[in-house]
Amino acid sequence: ACRVPGHLRRERQRPQVQGFRGLEHKVQHARVQPWPVRVYYHHTDAGGVVYHGTYLDFFEAARIELLHALGFDLAEMAETRHAMFIVYRITVDYHKPARLSDLLAVTAEIDRVGRARVVFGQRVLRDAELLVSARVEAACVHPRTLRPVPLPDALREGLQALV
Amino acid sequence: ACRVPGHLRRERQRPQVQGFRGLEHKVQHARVQPWPVRVYYHHTDAGGVVYHGTYLDFFEAARIELLHALGFDLAEMAETRHAMFIVYRITVDYHKPARLSDLLAVTAEIDRVGRARVVFGQRVLRDAELLVSARVEAACVHPRTLRPVPLPDALREGLQALV
Amino acid sequence: ACRVPGHLRRERQRPQVQGFRGLEHKVQHARVQPWPVRVYYHHTDAGGVVYHGTYLDFFEAARIELLHALGFDLAEMAETRHAMFIVYRITVDYHKPARLSDLLAVTAEIDRVGRARVVFGQRVLRDAELLVSARVEAACVHPRTLRPVPLPDALREGLQALV
Amino acid sequence: ACRVPGHLRRERQRPQVQGFRGLEHKVQHARVQPWPVRVYYHHTDAGGVVYHGTYLDFFEAARIELLHALGFDLAEMAETRHAMFIVYRITVDYHKPARLSDLLAVTAEIDRVGRARVVFGQRVLRDAELLVSARVEAACVHPRTLRPVPLPDALREGLQALV
Repeated sequence: ACRVPGHLRRERQRPQVQGFRGLEHKVQHARVQPWPVRVYYHHTDAGGVVYHGTYLDFFEAARIELLHALGFDLAEMAETRHAMFIVYRITVDYHKPARLSDLLAVTAEIDRVGRARVVFGQRVLRDAELLVSARVEAACVHPRTLRPVPLPDALREGLQALV
Repeated sequence: ACRVPGHLRRERQRPQVQGFRGLEHKVQHARVQPWPVRVYYHHTDAGGVVYHGTYLDFFEAARIELLHALGFDLAEMAETRHAMFIVYRITVDYHKPARLSDLLAVTAEIDRVGRARVVFGQRVLRDAELLVSARVEAACVHPRTLRPVPLPDALREGLQALV
Repeated sequence: ACRVPGHLRRERQRPQVQGFRGLEHKVQHARVQPWPVRVYYHHTDAGGVVYHGTYLDFFEAARIELLHALGFDLAEMAETRHAMFIVYRITVDYHKPARLSDLLAVTAEIDRVGRARVVFGQRVLRDAELLVSARVEAACVHPRTLRPVPLPDALREGLQALV
Repeated sequence: ACRVPGHLRRERQRPQVQGFRGLEHKVQHARVQPWPVRVYYHHTDAGGVVYHGTYLDFFEAARIELLHALGFDLAEMAETRHAMFIVYRITVDYHKPARLSDLLAVTAEIDRVGRARVVFGQRVLRDAELLVSARVEAACVHPRTLRPVPLPDALREGLQALV
């Protein structure tokens, strides 16, 4: 049910177009695009399973790739728009362990978009099996002061189209 | 030539006594002993602050040191008692960011002890300032099957004395 | 010059065929297949660049993906052949820093294959630019005793074809 | 209620004195003070041993603590002196594996001090046993441009006294 779709892999290259041309088309894909991750030794611990903290890295990857699919780049956003995301709350439920060599699919969906906040619903799946689920609440802040700043308009609109 | 200074060694080395002699005394200390952490580059990210996932490592350290203060060693527990802890739920609230070179104190308190479960309340402080708080729910499982097994009696009693 | 080739991305799915059918064909591709990595916050540090230790994770990923391209899976190798790789020597030269959002290509080439050892030459590139290069010497050991064991024959032959 | 125990605090807190009063005394200690590390799950991998990349974090901790023992703080150095260290070459030899719950001692010695460079010799020991040794070559650079800048005089003198 949850296989890595072909169009996703094209996204791994730095998008040529940084703007919003064709956004409506991309949005549809973004909704269903899981991020594929193979489990390597550096993800695991001596319990023989993926270390529970590693999933936060997987989730971060899937969120960033979702933003890229919308045409947004975090480095560019920090430098030219003086806005960056910080996570201010996270809840993770670990249902089943992942193991070395597993191929996982990591999803990022948009649950809510506020003026300076985004709430993500995220999951890690192995085939049809749900391994881990999370709710990640992120705020948009100024890179230097770390005080909340409004989401760039285009980004907020792009994210709202995914709710 | 290369020895751990004695005063640190007492705090951190593998305890000579694995049992519970003097537990009441230790318990009092365990309740109040936060784990000190200096923030290094490998804890931080390009946002200039501690990466949000790094706190899960800090929390793990404080939990393990609490168990050590009670005379329990996870490696020994896995090998001879066929019991290990896995985290099955975690909620983290990030209040303020920590930065490079900060000296942090990481606490681990026991909120609840069940037959095969322990709930920890954890905090990261910088002096009197609360930076991060978390609720970590862990299950005691068999290292091979990952199925729940009862906490070793002595450990459960030691933990319950801290609730 | 160093773009992520299309055939690589197909490899990110768990290979359907675990054996060596079509090895000769795959070998040719493996020689040139870099592994694509986007730089996320969890790869970086407060210096604003990728943390120097993170490249070891990138290198591990590229080595494991090379083995996968040859039809080998490390989890299966550990369980059924009682053989796993450990790194016993690594030399890394950091030429230029990578930054948040960079798309990197990580290579793994085979420099030498011994009875129980493999020497990898590895590089991290950003477009045509060489950022980091490494020599990684790994030994094949028994998972429990950690004593050297011969490389599985098929794997040694597959690797030697890449020297 | 939640204070770092005094005897640890002395070792780890941000030094009150940023200068070099009493340096000769400190230098003697710095030469022999290894940094203690307990092995937690997040340091290990599914091979049941400490992940080879984790030692780079241990080495970083020992280097930073050596600088602290000399009265230098990296965060302060970056902000007020516009100087930070980056690793440009590292060689690591892994002799024996460390395992969960091991108490390790990590050393940092100064092999050479140049105008803008420092070469460290580092080791990880478990009691008298040498587990890992490394040579770490670091350059002092401007935080923004990443171009080499001379080591602050006082730091260079402090380090040279340790060669």
